[in-house]
Amino acid sequence: MGRVTSRVRTVRVDISDVASHPVVTRPDTVVVEEPLAIRVGGEVLTVTMRTPGDDFSLTMGLLVSEGLIGSAGDVASMLHCVDTEGTDGSGSPTYNVVDVTLRAGLAAPAVTSLRSLVATSGCGLCGAASIDAIRHRAGFDVSLDEASWPSATVAGWPEQLRARQQVFDRTGGVHAAGLVTPSGELAFVHEDVGRHNAVDKVVGSALRAGLVPPLRGHALVVSARASFELVQKAYLAGIPLLAAVSAPSSLAVELATQTGLTLVGFVRSPRMVVYAGAQRVSPP
Amino acid sequence: MGRVTSRVRTVRVDISDVASHPVVTRPDTVVVEEPLAIRVGGEVLTVTMRTPGDDFSLTMGLLVSEGLIGSAGDVASMLHCVDTEGTDGSGSPTYNVVDVTLRAGLAAPAVTSLRSLVATSGCGLCGAASIDAIRHRAGFDVSLDEASWPSATVAGWPEQLRARQQVFDRTGGVHAAGLVTPSGELAFVHEDVGRHNAVDKVVGSALRAGLVPPLRGHALVVSARASFELVQKAYLAGIPLLAAVSAPSSLAVELATQTGLTLVGFVRSPRMVVYAGAQRVSPP
Repeated sequence: MGRVTSRVRTVRVDISDVASHPVVTRPDTVVVEEPLAIRVGGEVLTVTMRTPGDDFSLTMGLLVSEGLIGSAGDVASMLHCVDTEGTDGSGSPTYNVVDVTLRAGLAAPAVTSLRSLVATSGCGLCGAASIDAIRHRAGFDVSLDEASWPSATVAGWPEQLRARQQVFDRTGGVHAAGLVTPSGELAFVHEDVGRHNAVDKVVGSALRAGLVPPLRGHALVVSARASFELVQKAYLAGIPLLAAVSAPSSLAVELATQTGLTLVGFVRSPRMVVYAGAQRVSPP
Repeated sequence: MGRVTSRVRTVRVDISDVASHPVVTRPDTVVVEEPLAIRVGGEVLTVTMRTPGDDFSLTMGLLVSEGLIGSAGDVASMLHCVDTEGTDGSGSPTYNVVDVTLRAGLAAPAVTSLRSLVATSGCGLCGAASIDAIRHRAGFDVSLDEASWPSATVAGWPEQLRARQQVFDRTGGVHAAGLVTPSGELAFVHEDVGRHNAVDKVVGSALRAGLVPPLRGHALVVSARASFELVQKAYLAGIPLLAAVSAPSSLAVELATQTGLTLVGFVRSPRMVVYAGAQRVSPP
């Protein structure tokens, strides 16, 4: 049900090694990228290019970060679809379409969040309007979360995450994300060609394991840069701290600042840069 | 008309330096991320989170990679919109909405490419269907392009690109892309928080400078991994070679192979890996 890596034939070139010409062919491992359509109530909510596997976790995490559900209980059913869109020419399932039915009483919007911004932002499309739209979706206040972590603990997370990036080891081409629980365990680690998918899988796995947003006292660690979208996902899951190995964007910093979320970037031990919510990072 | 970087207050932490606690505040520069809505014929085609600047190039490149236009002449007009969506509360333009009018006779679809895959793929949503959908959009055959480059030339492109990444120098948080012309010049270099945006800006700039797809004999260089989407953009611009600093995905390799495009990954001098179309990479 979904290969994570794939073998391909390649030509290796080393310009410093004349003997490598004209041709050295070698098999190589690449990460699999396939489309996944998520349908809610029969309507396509979004199509994402993702690494197959953990599709139900990805779906549930995406529904959280779109503000459509608040807990796993809001999803009545999730199935790989087997109608025309979900099967190939021979009638076999492609496992690339997930059908979601929400519990009675929950309505599904026909548009994804970014598109809906245009419809909902009365004062013009801009970063501030984007932040307002996100803030209206959360049913809790992340700024009240009193969790904090010693900076030495935060500094160690990327290495812990890296140690569990099995797909990266084989392909060098995927992002990873994981959730640090209040007891300090790095859990729900996922890898994907898309960093947003990796985060959706993490949040979705946590919900399917019984956790309910807001995920108080948890921290989200990502192998990538911190964009607006990643801060949005952390915020709508109620996670008070996002730690990223690389740089944040301006809008990521603004969203974190305005929602009271802690955003740490360039976490490269022994150093890191705290862009918002520094009260949650304590001396080592 | 669009700041590219922004200054923020940060707390720098160094766990190996006790003196850095409790607090060392310093200003830091981050890359700006703001939403851009692209409307075609009054309908929102897409909303992308991008680094402001070169919005018309981004828009034109995106229209090419969506298969909506074949040349700059297919666009009758492009404007920053000044209606309610495009202005803030005081009536000033946000410069975050671009209004496109195509020349008479060209129709705009109401959906973006990934979404439309679901509607158009009769045999189920999968990588093969995605590739078929893209191939139907191109009016030319990239496989016929007889350009080739010495491997030593290809190996030098990432460094040339890196030398021109001014925003990366200040923020450490953006992707870059550029076009190598048949005369060997690295032109149309652009940076953006999104690598897809950087490529759209490159292709759009080339069209606005008078180039017309297929961009025969050109090569596209990107600072990032090579996803399906980036190969799609190269292919629909008619660029016969895509060189990426990092790893490709499975579907990127498949799309390149099936369309006859050359895909080179992990271009890190003196080495590189050719995943498709090795005939275009000649001995140094």
